[in-house]
Amino acid sequence: MSSHHVIREQQEPALIIANGEACNFELLGQLLEWSPLVIVLDSAINRVLELGIKVDVLLGDFDILRNTSDISLLDEQNLKRAINLEKIREDQYPIEIVHTPDQDKTDLEKAFDYLVEKGFPAVNVVWATGRRADHTITNITNIVRFREQLKIVVIDDYSKIFVLPNSYEKWYPAKTNISLIPVGEVSGITTHNLKYELSAENLTIGYRTGSSNEVKEDGLVKITYQSGDLLMMECND
Amino acid sequence: MSSHHVIREQQEPALIIANGEACNFELLGQLLEWSPLVIVLDSAINRVLELGIKVDVLLGDFDILRNTSDISLLDEQNLKRAINLEKIREDQYPIEIVHTPDQDKTDLEKAFDYLVEKGFPAVNVVWATGRRADHTITNITNIVRFREQLKIVVIDDYSKIFVLPNSYEKWYPAKTNISLIPVGEVSGITTHNLKYELSAENLTIGYRTGSSNEVKEDGLVKITYQSGDLLMMECND
Repeated sequence: MSSHHVIREQQEPALIIANGEACNFELLGQLLEWSPLVIVLDSAINRVLELGIKVDVLLGDFDILRNTSDISLLDEQNLKRAINLEKIREDQYPIEIVHTPDQDKTDLEKAFDYLVEKGFPAVNVVWATGRRADHTITNITNIVRFREQLKIVVIDDYSKIFVLPNSYEKWYPAKTNISLIPVGEVSGITTHNLKYELSAENLTIGYRTGSSNEVKEDGLVKITYQSGDLLMMECND
Repeated sequence: MSSHHVIREQQEPALIIANGEACNFELLGQLLEWSPLVIVLDSAINRVLELGIKVDVLLGDFDILRNTSDISLLDEQNLKRAINLEKIREDQYPIEIVHTPDQDKTDLEKAFDYLVEKGFPAVNVVWATGRRADHTITNITNIVRFREQLKIVVIDDYSKIFVLPNSYEKWYPAKTNISLIPVGEVSGITTHNLKYELSAENLTIGYRTGSSNEVKEDGLVKITYQSGDLLMMECND
């Protein structure tokens, strides 16, 4: 992060806090520090407010609202998920509350749409993995459909996930764990400086993936591919 | 579980304990109770032994073994993963230790191969999700390639995951969460008794999935599809 540049407000990645497992607070703090905009998804807001974080946008279908008339009818689990919008509006002023009832999209996709519309070029996403496996796999794989519009990085305590451009080059230290995960079928993959190299090969989810590879030696890793959507996962235990 | 049947030893599902996040102990206990065979993958053995579980098979490439000469060279993390095979062999007698150095397959796939070879028809898998996202997505989606050989159910605290046969029918209570996740492209999907029905439709991972559906009313849910691999995920927060 070079401090001698003037940073335009929307140049740094926005931050989306989704509704999966919380990441460690230090990681969250690092991401918050530079983020020009913090979006929280639906009932995650309750867990986020407990952490004392200032939220800019709350987005969701809010299927569970809390108001005086129905609070007694909620069971314990739903009470935890219930949202008191009025209180949030007061405490977090100014906050934009975006109601997105469209059932064809997940809240995370709606948040990506929101950022694209506002002209943000990039976003980091936390709390999008862990807990329910259906949400985890959907959140991770759905980022490919935004590959032309938004630079998305999904981050948790163990993983950093993003869509690889068709030609990718970056310096890595030797032995860095690298997993290449095809979302569907990916053809013509060629790698340079990995322990298990690929040479114009195909990967297919469920049948042949490039999980658990690693960087051969300190230096540039190059990955190119022809068609399909290839995820890079930099993961550590 | 009907107790008036004579249960042949290999009729109940075997249990694989993989190397991801631990599930809650009660769930593990239930699965252990009926399991005719318990397989543990590689360095998960250290965490499993701490729980006092009797293991039948330990399987892995054992890239980190512990022996007196090199233990001082291990850093803290590797020390936690190091395995003392001699001690395990003594403490867990009888135990089969299967060394599987093949780098083209994950330890989980090698365990599936082992069970197929031994003639087991079914297996439950725990600790296969959580922590590293690359392992999670690989473990979940790779079960499709065994669909003709082994009935695999991946289970964690939030999720139960299995490959749907091309024609599936089961009774569910209303509002049960059901997610249909295509591993690649799945065509000709028709559902009956879901909130958002599909009628001869296609799902494609990354672009259109059937996540976060639910059962419409108490009764039979029917799902049929023509080609591809469709995962059923029954998940709860």
